[in-house]
Amino acid sequence: MTAEPRALLRQMFDAAVGAALPERCLPGKLPAPGSGRTLVVGAGKASAAMAATLERHWQGALSGLVVTRYGHGVACRQIEIVEAAHPVPDEAGRAAAERMLALMRGLNAEDLVICLFSGGGSALLTLPAAGLTLADKQAVNRALLACGANIAEMNCVRKHLSAIKGGRLGAAAHPARVMTLLLSDVPGDDPAVIASGPTVPDPSTFAEARGVLAKYAIDAPASVVTRLQRAEDETPKPGDHRLCNAHTVMVSRPQDALMAAAEVARSAGVTPLVLGDAIEGEAREVATVMAGIVRQVVRHAQPVAPPCVLLSGGETTVSVRGAGRGGRNSEFLLALAIALDAMPGVFALAADTDGIDGSEHNAGAILVPDALRRAHERGLAPKRLLRDNDGYGFFHALGDLVVTGPTLTNVNDFRAILVLPR
Amino acid sequence: MTAEPRALLRQMFDAAVGAALPERCLPGKLPAPGSGRTLVVGAGKASAAMAATLERHWQGALSGLVVTRYGHGVACRQIEIVEAAHPVPDEAGRAAAERMLALMRGLNAEDLVICLFSGGGSALLTLPAAGLTLADKQAVNRALLACGANIAEMNCVRKHLSAIKGGRLGAAAHPARVMTLLLSDVPGDDPAVIASGPTVPDPSTFAEARGVLAKYAIDAPASVVTRLQRAEDETPKPGDHRLCNAHTVMVSRPQDALMAAAEVARSAGVTPLVLGDAIEGEAREVATVMAGIVRQVVRHAQPVAPPCVLLSGGETTVSVRGAGRGGRNSEFLLALAIALDAMPGVFALAADTDGIDGSEHNAGAILVPDALRRAHERGLAPKRLLRDNDGYGFFHALGDLVVTGPTLTNVNDFRAILVLPR
Repeated sequence: MTAEPRALLRQMFDAAVGAALPERCLPGKLPAPGSGRTLVVGAGKASAAMAATLERHWQGALSGLVVTRYGHGVACRQIEIVEAAHPVPDEAGRAAAERMLALMRGLNAEDLVICLFSGGGSALLTLPAAGLTLADKQAVNRALLACGANIAEMNCVRKHLSAIKGGRLGAAAHPARVMTLLLSDVPGDDPAVIASGPTVPDPSTFAEARGVLAKYAIDAPASVVTRLQRAEDETPKPGDHRLCNAHTVMVSRPQDALMAAAEVARSAGVTPLVLGDAIEGEAREVATVMAGIVRQVVRHAQPVAPPCVLLSGGETTVSVRGAGRGGRNSEFLLALAIALDAMPGVFALAADTDGIDGSEHNAGAILVPDALRRAHERGLAPKRLLRDNDGYGFFHALGDLVVTGPTLTNVNDFRAILVLPR
Repeated sequence: MTAEPRALLRQMFDAAVGAALPERCLPGKLPAPGSGRTLVVGAGKASAAMAATLERHWQGALSGLVVTRYGHGVACRQIEIVEAAHPVPDEAGRAAAERMLALMRGLNAEDLVICLFSGGGSALLTLPAAGLTLADKQAVNRALLACGANIAEMNCVRKHLSAIKGGRLGAAAHPARVMTLLLSDVPGDDPAVIASGPTVPDPSTFAEARGVLAKYAIDAPASVVTRLQRAEDETPKPGDHRLCNAHTVMVSRPQDALMAAAEVARSAGVTPLVLGDAIEGEAREVATVMAGIVRQVVRHAQPVAPPCVLLSGGETTVSVRGAGRGGRNSEFLLALAIALDAMPGVFALAADTDGIDGSEHNAGAILVPDALRRAHERGLAPKRLLRDNDGYGFFHALGDLVVTGPTLTNVNDFRAILVLPR
C-alpha cells in the first residue's frame, strides 16, 4: 500500500463525493429543449447545485424555483433558489412547494418542465394535503425519524400526507413534457422513492401508510389518522395518463460513488470489496457484522486478503434511546470501534456524502486503531457513549471528525474499512 | 449450476457438519500415551462422540467420565458417558462435574489426562463455587441467554461462579500431563472460551464478570452478587505453574466446516464467498445486512457474480421479546425472508451444526423464494411472527424445517445464501 491510511480513506471519500457532484455528472444528461417554455423546479440537498450547473450548460431561457437545505444554496441567475429546513420540514419548504405546484398550472404540450431531485427532497418539498397542517406533518416526520423506520417507509407515509409528492407534481404539469433528473440516495435507485417521487407514479397506498404507523406504534395527530383513512384522492398509479409524458434520467447513484472510491483504492494497491450500495440495518448492528467480516479478512484472508478495503453505501438507522449527539455514521463507527477492540491495522471512515451526519456540523468521522486508548486517556467511556447515542461526542473529543461542510451533493452514506497486513 | 437449489444447500450443510465429525477429525490429533494411567474427561455436545472415537483409535487402557447433552450420548466401552441438560444446566451435569474434579485427585507426573471439550461444554460442565447453588447458577444462565449477551460474556460470568471452569479442572490435575482436544464453536477459536476453558488459563476477572451483569442489568441472586465481590480464589491466570504441563490441540473449527461447504459449492459451479466464521450480532439485523449484500450481488454482480453462495458461521444473538418458538437460525431466516421480500433466485439455509436450533427439534430451516407467498396462503403474518420470535412456527408451518437430529458435533451456526442468475 502506497498511502497513509487516514489520507487514503479521506481520498476515497473525496472521490466518492466527487463522482456525485452535479458539475461532473449532470451536463451529459440534459434533455433536448422544447419549442415552448422551459420551467425548472426541484428539491434536495444537491438541487441548487444541480440548478446552477443546468444554467451554465443550457442554451436558452430558463425560469423556475428550486428548494434546498439551509446552507446548501448556490447563486443562480435565472432560477430562484429557496432554502428550507431538513430533516424536519418548515414553513419555508411548505411555501416553496405551494409556489412550485402553482407554476405547473396552465402549461401546454410544447412546454418542458425540468425537475431536479436529490436526497433530502422529501423533507424539503413539503405541502400538507387538505386538512393537514405543517405541524401535523412535522410531528409524524419526527416520530418516523426517531423510531427506526427505513426511508421507503417514511416516504410512503409522506406521499399520502402530501399534495405534491407521489406523482402529484408531475400530474399537475400535464400536458407539458416533464423530464426529471435524479441524483439517487436510496436503495435500488427507485425514482418513485427519491425525493418521494413528485413526478413518478406511486404504487404505494393509503393502507400501506397506515401500516407503517401501526408497525412503529406512532401516535399520530387525529388529522393524520383521518387523512390516511381516505379511499379517494390516491396518488397517481402506474399507467396514469397524466404521467405518460413524464420521463426520468439518473445522473448519479451511490454505486457510482463506491466505484470511484474503489478506483482510488486500486491505484493505492489496496483491493476494494464492494459489499453493497444499499446496506441497511441498525447502525450498531451493521458495525457488528462488518467487524465479523474484518476478523475473517485478518484471520483467514477471506473474502479478500489484506491490504483491502470493505466499501459500502446505503442508509443505516439509529433507534434513538439516549440523549447524545451525532448521526448514523458516528454511531456506526463508535460501535465498530467497540467491536474491533483496537484491532491493529484496521482503519475506517464513515460519513454522509452530503457533508452532514445527522444534526451536527460534521460529515462523519475516522476510526484509527488507537482511538480506544486515546479515549480511555481522556476519561471517555465508549460503551456508555454508545448507549447514549453519542458517537459525535466520542469522535469530537478525539479530534477525529471528518468535516467537509455541505458538499452540495448527496448519494447517501459512505463507509470504508481499511485492513492492512499484520 | 448443476444442482437443485434446495439439494445443493443441504449438501453444503451436510459437508460442513461432516468436516467436524469426530470420526473424521479426531484420530490424527491424538496424543502419545504416557507411562502411567490415562484418564479421560470431557464435556460438550460432541464429547461423547469424541470419546467413542478415542476408544476406537487408542492403544491401551482408558477410564474416565464424559458429560454430553441429553440425546447426544454414544455407547462407550471404557469411558462412562453421562447425559445432562443444555443450555440450562441441571443436577446431572453438576454431579458429573463434581465426580470429574474428584478424578483429578492424586494423579502424578506419569499420568495423562485427555480432555474432550466441545461446544455446549460450558453449560454441561456445571459445578457451582462454594456458597452457590445450582439454582443460583441456573437463574444467571437463563438471564444471560435471554438478554442478548455474547458467548464470551456468558463464559466470563460462568467461570467466576464455577469450581471447575476457567482452568480450575486443569489445575486440579497437576502434576499430571493434560492434553485437551478441542472442537471449536467460538469466534477466534480461543481455547479459553471453548467449554469455558476448564484446562486453560483464564485472563478474565471477577471485576469483568460484575461488569457483564451490570451491562445487561441482570438481577442476580444475592449469593451470586456476593461471590462476584471476591478478590481471592481467582481463576488460574496465564503463567500459573499448575497449568505448565497442560496443552491444547484444535481438532475442528467453524472455518473448516465453511471450507468444506465452499468446496461443495465450487464442485457445483457456484462461487463461494466466505464472509466470516464468527459473524455476530442480533439475528434479524444480521439478516438485514446479508440481504443488502444479496441485493448488491443481484444488481451489480458484486462482491461476486451469481451463481454464488454467501457463507458464514458464528453465533448470532436473539434478544427475546416475544413468546414464539425457535432459535437463532430460524429467526435469522425469517428476518431474511422479510428483508428479501420474495426475491427470485435467492435461497438460503441456516442451521446449527449441532442439529438443534434453540429449544426445538430442528437444526434450522431452508428459505425459498416462494416462502412468503405460501405463508400468505396459510394465513401466516411473517412480521408478526418475527416480532414474536417465532421463526420456528413460520418454517414449521411451511414444511421447510431442516431436521437432522443431534449430529454429535458442534462447530456453531452455518448460514448459506445461494444467489442464482436471473
